Amino acid sequence: MKQTVVLMLLLVLSVWVGAAGIKAQMAQFPAVKTAIEELVLANHILYDQNAVDGYGHISVRNPANPNTFFLARSIAPSSVQTDDIMEFDMTGTALNGDMRIPYGERFIHSSIYRNRPDVNSVVHGHAPAVLPFGLTGTSLKPVYHMSAFLGEGAPIFEISRYAKPDPDTDMFVGNSELGDALARTMGQGNFVLMRGHGYAAAADSIRKVVFRSVYAIQNAVIQTEALKMGQPRYLTAGEAARSQQTIEKTINRPWELWSQRVREH
Amino acid sequence: MKQTVVLMLLLVLSVWVGAAGIKAQMAQFPAVKTAIEELVLANHILYDQNAVDGYGHISVRNPANPNTFFLARSIAPSSVQTDDIMEFDMTGTALNGDMRIPYGERFIHSSIYRNRPDVNSVVHGHAPAVLPFGLTGTSLKPVYHMSAFLGEGAPIFEISRYAKPDPDTDMFVGNSELGDALARTMGQGNFVLMRGHGYAAAADSIRKVVFRSVYAIQNAVIQTEALKMGQPRYLTAGEAARSQQTIEKTINRPWELWSQRVREH
Amino acid sequence: MKQTVVLMLLLVLSVWVGAAGIKAQMAQFPAVKTAIEELVLANHILYDQNAVDGYGHISVRNPANPNTFFLARSIAPSSVQTDDIMEFDMTGTALNGDMRIPYGERFIHSSIYRNRPDVNSVVHGHAPAVLPFGLTGTSLKPVYHMSAFLGEGAPIFEISRYAKPDPDTDMFVGNSELGDALARTMGQGNFVLMRGHGYAAAADSIRKVVFRSVYAIQNAVIQTEALKMGQPRYLTAGEAARSQQTIEKTINRPWELWSQRVREH
Amino acid sequence: MKQTVVLMLLLVLSVWVGAAGIKAQMAQFPAVKTAIEELVLANHILYDQNAVDGYGHISVRNPANPNTFFLARSIAPSSVQTDDIMEFDMTGTALNGDMRIPYGERFIHSSIYRNRPDVNSVVHGHAPAVLPFGLTGTSLKPVYHMSAFLGEGAPIFEISRYAKPDPDTDMFVGNSELGDALARTMGQGNFVLMRGHGYAAAADSIRKVVFRSVYAIQNAVIQTEALKMGQPRYLTAGEAARSQQTIEKTINRPWELWSQRVREH
Repeated sequence: MKQTVVLMLLLVLSVWVGAAGIKAQMAQFPAVKTAIEELVLANHILYDQNAVDGYGHISVRNPANPNTFFLARSIAPSSVQTDDIMEFDMTGTALNGDMRIPYGERFIHSSIYRNRPDVNSVVHGHAPAVLPFGLTGTSLKPVYHMSAFLGEGAPIFEISRYAKPDPDTDMFVGNSELGDALARTMGQGNFVLMRGHGYAAAADSIRKVVFRSVYAIQNAVIQTEALKMGQPRYLTAGEAARSQQTIEKTINRPWELWSQRVREH
Repeated sequence: MKQTVVLMLLLVLSVWVGAAGIKAQMAQFPAVKTAIEELVLANHILYDQNAVDGYGHISVRNPANPNTFFLARSIAPSSVQTDDIMEFDMTGTALNGDMRIPYGERFIHSSIYRNRPDVNSVVHGHAPAVLPFGLTGTSLKPVYHMSAFLGEGAPIFEISRYAKPDPDTDMFVGNSELGDALARTMGQGNFVLMRGHGYAAAADSIRKVVFRSVYAIQNAVIQTEALKMGQPRYLTAGEAARSQQTIEKTINRPWELWSQRVREH
Repeated sequence: MKQTVVLMLLLVLSVWVGAAGIKAQMAQFPAVKTAIEELVLANHILYDQNAVDGYGHISVRNPANPNTFFLARSIAPSSVQTDDIMEFDMTGTALNGDMRIPYGERFIHSSIYRNRPDVNSVVHGHAPAVLPFGLTGTSLKPVYHMSAFLGEGAPIFEISRYAKPDPDTDMFVGNSELGDALARTMGQGNFVLMRGHGYAAAADSIRKVVFRSVYAIQNAVIQTEALKMGQPRYLTAGEAARSQQTIEKTINRPWELWSQRVREH
Repeated sequence: MKQTVVLMLLLVLSVWVGAAGIKAQMAQFPAVKTAIEELVLANHILYDQNAVDGYGHISVRNPANPNTFFLARSIAPSSVQTDDIMEFDMTGTALNGDMRIPYGERFIHSSIYRNRPDVNSVVHGHAPAVLPFGLTGTSLKPVYHMSAFLGEGAPIFEISRYAKPDPDTDMFVGNSELGDALARTMGQGNFVLMRGHGYAAAADSIRKVVFRSVYAIQNAVIQTEALKMGQPRYLTAGEAARSQQTIEKTINRPWELWSQRVREH
């Protein structure tokens, strides 16, 4: 009983310390303040755009320290507020003495950040339209300019190849070894399918990774129907490269729309 | 005329007595109060999540008496309030002298409770995404960790095999014999498809059975598309068992989200 | 100019006279008042349930005069109010000196009422889920108890067979000859598919025809997917007859839900 | 720094001058005022009806000057207000000294207006249901009277045929040469599919082009399912011509409904 009380006091203290650690950085670095406010908004947008449901998460690399990143504690994305943000290092360990429960799959984020210095934001989700691709070994390929970032097609992460000693896992990327295998499968791309689970998307900014998540799902919807209608003509490598360059200059346009929608709710 | 008046008075009295019987238990047993409040909320959530429409129902075993269970009177789930809850015994007979009209298919619930002491909550619904499986003899199998509880695949209940003497029924599980046949088909699983009708789901708690209903439907949506795209790789028995253990620890996360949604409406 | 003014005055007068004719009947016959109020509500429900969009219509036979029926003037169903209701005879001619613009396809209604004394309410709509059946010559057959009223399958009305002298029509059932051909195709059934156009549903009450419209569309959604998954097992003739009898006793349950939804908007 | 300030002042001035140029025309010509107000409403309707998302645009030919047209600056359609409207000439050059950022694909509009004196309004969008047709070389053909304007089927614009010297473009119709090639592909029709991109629709009025956009998408949904169900029977050329004539007399009916929906938001 006494032990429980002590543990609870420690937890309350750690929440206060954890939140305080982040608040101090927000006060000191305007870029951190902007990043965390945008991260909260991005959580709500991803839910409103059906890119996540009660599960799924988005992180941002700390603009003041490339070796840490921000990610909410383990709650539904649509509920996330500034006070729910935690800070993690590149091994997925919580910083600032924060003892709140983190997402079990924070290693998706830490491993991609470690493997890809150009990536500043990562999304993980289970949108139903994307799942059939990983399940059937079908690559997600760009059907239009909006999802040109898919390039020559998204690779598929087969978790059982990396699980030791038993290939039967709980499907969760729950440690750095599995996270690193996932990051290696993604390689220098922007998107990776996870068989029997979902997907991870990466970009150099929050706004761009949200854009990519939304339009990867639209791509999945379109490609699924096109595959049943005939042989789809995907963007060529050249078309994809050029389309991506043009369209990704305009991502503030949908971002403004999506922000307005969640603010009005 | 006189007879009608007497009957109406009896009905009013029975409503008053029926509701009183449940209110007394709620006052006496905090666990009953919690269960009934959660049952009302679960009705609203199932509607908001498109797991039921004007039809479908959810019940909970009485925490103070394992031989009875609570289930709303025959109204649309989204309208259910505390006063609409009735109590039934293991033969589907209403208790507390309650003469209100019950769901004709309360035997789905009573039979599963009788056959499965580990089950404390049951859902029955007709979600369109689930129907094609029963109609074509296709087992619903787990495509991802969220629906790992489907294990090695959901069995299909073929009502005409159990109807006597005529195999042509009205498709309703309207008595204990059909209920028992359904419960036997479900066996030790958590989900059973009902050909030409819908499905039933079971769990040890309200929150878990709501979670399973929502994600069984998502599984159906994903599996339907995957089957058209190629040969889906389902979770292995080992993956399903481990995934279920991990994911079902987190069911409070979507429950909080779904509760908030229906409270805000 | 003078002529236009006279025409406009006549129109205003006719609206006043037309509405007055119906108001007098509502005052005299409680059953007419109930029918018209329910007809207005049914228009809103059909829109809310996606059974109609800006197009589509529902009528009710006059409870005080079996040789006339009520139907809104030519506006979107969701906008219909009591003052928009017109009265027609069995040839589709407006009564009460009403000169407002009627739906061009009121002959769907007049012809079904003339051919089927048991029918008291008719719906016509273009719900996308239903269209592929008529286009490909696929009968809509009952996949579950909810749509058991489809019996042994809905017939398909091929308008070009009845168009004289040229088989190429504007696809509209715009006169009594085409209306009668449609009614004959429907026969003693409750539902008829119209190739390249939509469907018509019939029942002995407004509530039942709304129920049938909603669940015929659900049936179409389910059957479409089941056909791609394998060979669906439809309800047998015996199952359909018994299911219909049981389920159609409960139609007030969804009606209450649907009414509440449109009242809250 | 000084240069930036001068540029910003020039931009503010140009916005003021650009908006002033249009306001002067609205004050002078009632038809211009009506057209611009309807254009703003049409932007909101297209978003509400899922015909555009954060991308896509609609223009109207200047009723006071057939050699110019109105189109919003580069923002999401649902955000467009009167002050956001710009005026362009037939080469896609902004008029009235307006230096705000225009849509990169305004050449879709200028080229169709130049090639088609009968066209007064143009829509461009990326609705997912339409994409599989262009991707697989499947013509969009009229499945019912609502989309009879598709006539004998929509042509497909293959941008790589017109790109010089390299066939790999960024998929954008970003200059008059590509715009003219698109307009020639559309020919005297009302709709053109753009492979790997979306579609363009044309009509003699804003209301009609909105109607056609909404029902082309419905047609795509229906045709997609019908193609999987069997061999769809499309409208014959005669049926299409007659249906179009009848249905397009009624387009104010859905326009009123759609206007009311966006006004209530």
